[in-house]
Amino acid sequence: MRNIEYDEASPEVKAVYDDIMATRRVDWINNFWKVLANDPASLRRTWESLKQVMAPGALDPLVKEMLYLAVSASNGCGYCIASHSAAARKAGMSDAMFGELMAVVGMASETNRLAQGWQVEVDERFRPRR
Amino acid sequence: MRNIEYDEASPEVKAVYDDIMATRRVDWINNFWKVLANDPASLRRTWESLKQVMAPGALDPLVKEMLYLAVSASNGCGYCIASHSAAARKAGMSDAMFGELMAVVGMASETNRLAQGWQVEVDERFRPRR
Amino acid sequence: MRNIEYDEASPEVKAVYDDIMATRRVDWINNFWKVLANDPASLRRTWESLKQVMAPGALDPLVKEMLYLAVSASNGCGYCIASHSAAARKAGMSDAMFGELMAVVGMASETNRLAQGWQVEVDERFRPRR
Amino acid sequence: MRNIEYDEASPEVKAVYDDIMATRRVDWINNFWKVLANDPASLRRTWESLKQVMAPGALDPLVKEMLYLAVSASNGCGYCIASHSAAARKAGMSDAMFGELMAVVGMASETNRLAQGWQVEVDERFRPRR
Amino acid sequence: MRNIEYDEASPEVKAVYDDIMATRRVDWINNFWKVLANDPASLRRTWESLKQVMAPGALDPLVKEMLYLAVSASNGCGYCIASHSAAARKAGMSDAMFGELMAVVGMASETNRLAQGWQVEVDERFRPRR
Amino acid sequence: MRNIEYDEASPEVKAVYDDIMATRRVDWINNFWKVLANDPASLRRTWESLKQVMAPGALDPLVKEMLYLAVSASNGCGYCIASHSAAARKAGMSDAMFGELMAVVGMASETNRLAQGWQVEVDERFRPRR
Repeated sequence: MRNIEYDEASPEVKAVYDDIMATRRVDWINNFWKVLANDPASLRRTWESLKQVMAPGALDPLVKEMLYLAVSASNGCGYCIASHSAAARKAGMSDAMFGELMAVVGMASETNRLAQGWQVEVDERFRPRR
Repeated sequence: MRNIEYDEASPEVKAVYDDIMATRRVDWINNFWKVLANDPASLRRTWESLKQVMAPGALDPLVKEMLYLAVSASNGCGYCIASHSAAARKAGMSDAMFGELMAVVGMASETNRLAQGWQVEVDERFRPRR
Repeated sequence: MRNIEYDEASPEVKAVYDDIMATRRVDWINNFWKVLANDPASLRRTWESLKQVMAPGALDPLVKEMLYLAVSASNGCGYCIASHSAAARKAGMSDAMFGELMAVVGMASETNRLAQGWQVEVDERFRPRR
Repeated sequence: MRNIEYDEASPEVKAVYDDIMATRRVDWINNFWKVLANDPASLRRTWESLKQVMAPGALDPLVKEMLYLAVSASNGCGYCIASHSAAARKAGMSDAMFGELMAVVGMASETNRLAQGWQVEVDERFRPRR
Repeated sequence: MRNIEYDEASPEVKAVYDDIMATRRVDWINNFWKVLANDPASLRRTWESLKQVMAPGALDPLVKEMLYLAVSASNGCGYCIASHSAAARKAGMSDAMFGELMAVVGMASETNRLAQGWQVEVDERFRPRR
Repeated sequence: MRNIEYDEASPEVKAVYDDIMATRRVDWINNFWKVLANDPASLRRTWESLKQVMAPGALDPLVKEMLYLAVSASNGCGYCIASHSAAARKAGMSDAMFGELMAVVGMASETNRLAQGWQVEVDERFRPRR
């Protein structure tokens, strides 16, 4: 689908674009939102959810960006890896932090498959209390 | 494969078990290692890698545990989710932090698929510099 | 692997190409089949299965194409997303339908990870009857 | 995490539970929501999004439920497969429709991997117009 | 869905069951086929494909079973890991071979994520010739 | 991240590059290692693990390379598919072997999803002995 640029956007889409730029303190819109704007309801709902999820809370924004990047790397989403690497850098992730983040992602991917392939049974102490 | 208990383990396996307990300051071994002990080379190599990756560095241990848990949830590995939830709790993750961590994992899973399904092109600014 | 074009194909491969074009009422072969033709047994078996699976039945062809696209988006297969978006469009998927399809794919990806990460137990009523 | 039952829920959580039951015309809450209620912000946000996404629109509710089930099967989420199989049945999915749905999911999973492993190049005609 | 036992099966389903037992030289049917028998067309098509794919060819049956198990471990399919571990054992896989197989699966899972997360560009020499 | 070329590499990184070239009997370093060299600890640890895992043992090097390729195809990692296709070819994989390998990967992906979506229960005989 083609990108919907700011100048050609409907008022509803423009309002979301404006909120994205104001919230993130940037003066441009990245392609993810421009493409999603082909379906204004998806654009608005996705942005509203993302804004709530990524707001500071019990976890600080840098940790949230690193978690986002870790999942994106785990899913192998090229666009998401590129955009969230940039976002995490902006939030303060150094080269050393990125190297360690990816080492954890790689290690978790490895042991996840080992635990499944070896059919490890959950330890009694790890079972959720209900 | 059956679990290799400490008392029946070979000296090579016992040495790894001892190092796991000493490094983590615990007095028991969880099933993942007991099953992997059926292949002593895998046990030793996996533990040595994990110990290095999870040691404090540019990222603190709690952040590393949360990244590990996020990838495990993304991969849907039941054993890993159970064991790393426990590890992250022990490292200081509160209920509120867990709720926000899972919200980020869920949101990233959603937007990863949206970016791929909508065939979003990587923005020029996000391309890695080579 | 390189593409096997119609004119250079063996009679066995040509017969599959002819059936693809006749069944789909098109006058060209897309790259997926041209590459698979490097292994004629895989080409024939895959096409025969696909033809049976995608034939009208209890579900109509448009719904089948949308299900195919949803799984391809979920798997992040670039080629498959591109080719099955085209196929679904041809079968009648509008822009609005695509937007809703992707919204469901995204939402399912999100709640799948939430259900796994939060370790939700299957409700008694949802258990399969055996 | 333990399930939050209706009677012990906070007013905020009860309001979401009430809306779930009213929207779906049921008199009980399934475990997914009861567990998510441990994080009321996630409960409310996820439910609001799901309600919008699954509402009738360009696609009818049965098709949406089948797409949801297809993605859940593709992700291998046991809870989600169980709960959305039930939801799709309730929306009208017959045994024959389920059989065909799963046949499409299986076939798409197979050809997704073939397209990736054989490194098939996207046909010029399938490239998105930008 | 419930299992369709041999004695209650239709002649069409019985014919597939008979062929499975004859081809594999066993006197019982495992649950995968008994459940798939709820959709006889899927049962027959899946069995025919599997029989062709797993027949001896350029790769011997043990290697094919190990590849099947590796993919099943990578996908985290519990049923498939259990059934194909048994099949690979029967075809000659020793404990030592299983340990090495899982070590490769784990290592590939790790480096797959590293290559994606670090956004490694494909070397010119690795590009497919077209 | 940019590639670290041999001539500009630190002595620590050069030592790993030298070992890679000596072990593999090649005179060049592929991009995966050049990018990972941005984090020398990850470079060294990943190479040491890979060298151990891929060494001849109970499985011969060709089988190991094919397992690696099968997992990479299953994960849809473009770089890994390209590089391990080349490695498997070099270790002796013919066109016919590759065709059969991909047929197994495709078939496993299909039946993995069928087993999960149809909620097949593990047969008593397939359960691991503990």
